[in-house]
Amino acid sequence: MEIIGVTVDNIKVGDKAAIRKTITEADILMFAAVSTDANPAHIDEEYAKNTIFKKRIAHGALTSSLVSAVLGMKLPGPGTIYISQTSKFLAPVYIGDTITAIVEAKEVNTEKNRVVFRTYCENQEGKIVMDGEAVVMPPKKK
Amino acid sequence: MEIIGVTVDNIKVGDKAAIRKTITEADILMFAAVSTDANPAHIDEEYAKNTIFKKRIAHGALTSSLVSAVLGMKLPGPGTIYISQTSKFLAPVYIGDTITAIVEAKEVNTEKNRVVFRTYCENQEGKIVMDGEAVVMPPKKK
Amino acid sequence: MEIIGVTVDNIKVGDKAAIRKTITEADILMFAAVSTDANPAHIDEEYAKNTIFKKRIAHGALTSSLVSAVLGMKLPGPGTIYISQTSKFLAPVYIGDTITAIVEAKEVNTEKNRVVFRTYCENQEGKIVMDGEAVVMPPKKK
Amino acid sequence: MEIIGVTVDNIKVGDKAAIRKTITEADILMFAAVSTDANPAHIDEEYAKNTIFKKRIAHGALTSSLVSAVLGMKLPGPGTIYISQTSKFLAPVYIGDTITAIVEAKEVNTEKNRVVFRTYCENQEGKIVMDGEAVVMPPKKK
Repeated sequence: MEIIGVTVDNIKVGDKAAIRKTITEADILMFAAVSTDANPAHIDEEYAKNTIFKKRIAHGALTSSLVSAVLGMKLPGPGTIYISQTSKFLAPVYIGDTITAIVEAKEVNTEKNRVVFRTYCENQEGKIVMDGEAVVMPPKKK
Repeated sequence: MEIIGVTVDNIKVGDKAAIRKTITEADILMFAAVSTDANPAHIDEEYAKNTIFKKRIAHGALTSSLVSAVLGMKLPGPGTIYISQTSKFLAPVYIGDTITAIVEAKEVNTEKNRVVFRTYCENQEGKIVMDGEAVVMPPKKK
Repeated sequence: MEIIGVTVDNIKVGDKAAIRKTITEADILMFAAVSTDANPAHIDEEYAKNTIFKKRIAHGALTSSLVSAVLGMKLPGPGTIYISQTSKFLAPVYIGDTITAIVEAKEVNTEKNRVVFRTYCENQEGKIVMDGEAVVMPPKKK
Repeated sequence: MEIIGVTVDNIKVGDKAAIRKTITEADILMFAAVSTDANPAHIDEEYAKNTIFKKRIAHGALTSSLVSAVLGMKLPGPGTIYISQTSKFLAPVYIGDTITAIVEAKEVNTEKNRVVFRTYCENQEGKIVMDGEAVVMPPKKK
């Protein structure tokens, strides 16, 4: 059984893929554990009440990790090499928000085996909470 | 007790902070849980043997999450608002690698309350595995 | 200190044991991590709203894992070898439900060192959410 | 974006799907946490040395949870309702083993919207460690 994603010659500008997930307290706790980012904005409700966000928010890097899931599992999928990522954090993500992470091919360079994706995340109201760009090398046929 | 990080007028170009952590199998599993990124490169050793990396690697987004920990907990620390992040993934991170995430102030704009940091991660051999830039708003005195 | 469960000659038909646990969001996240089962029915509240269950549900295999805890820790306990398990999923388990997993000896074969247990799980309202049967080999005295 | 798996009229006898994962210490620890199954066979290396398996083994219910991932995410995928599962545990799964969970359609009942799958798990040497059967209701088009 060979596990391989989509090769560069099968990706065209405009191709999209997405995943969706509800962000839970447990996600924030586990993300804090892995990243060691125990910033009170994420784990201290009393502290968070006095911030401009009024409640605990998810780590920006947690939200952008969903993008990595789409690139690594869906488009292009297994075998992809992640070259770079840019992310602008545009709005807070709260516990209970359901986030859709979307990747959309913007530039496909078959010769160099590189694809540039717009990568963005929306909440359940369609508001864009994160926007950016990823450069990846799709998998090659063996 | 007020928890507050470093305000913009106390940050100067060249200021640095860092955290260090050994990346474990458990980190990868928990990061896969939160991100939903169960790409076989991260969780399937048999698959990984046949990749250019030869072994399972950590998620690139896991490595860059360490940068978020330095920004949110050390420099500038609590109260920081994360504006944007860019990351280039330069070398693989393996289970057992000890990664140092470093932030270094490059531009300080007191008027706009913005600081640009170079953000990079080194492994235990001093090899830079990730390099990039973060833009943040340091906390304000109340 | 020898850790050993109940041997076959000390188990009689009708013997029972149970454990009880409240199912949390964190359980679902961690179960998704281990099993790689990130089915939207478990992790996407927006998706779940449009299913017949109306809310996110726990994985059926999570519920049945509680049965394994009773068999391996209580009756027969340490040293038990798990031969087989059947499970019928009869009703959904929601976040916040408190589930009691119960095992009850149905057949005891001392000669072959085998015990058949009815294994079932009830929610906090006494509704049976899962029902089935396990065959195990109880531990032997050394 | 509608997330829906394969409907019954698109499944035929012999259709297969699989996922693969290396079982880690962290998996066992997290499975123990969720299931409350802290049987020493799984978490106590000193105890395990004196068992017939000689080393700590993964929970049987952990191995069978991989089957649930294939059914819920691949075939039939999102929207599937899990009716029942049988599992025979045929060989131990050790830390570091890479397990492939496979489902294969055996009976397709379009009228009743039910599919019976053979569900089995192999280790990296092709040895079948678990074998059984699942009955599911594939998702329906809305």
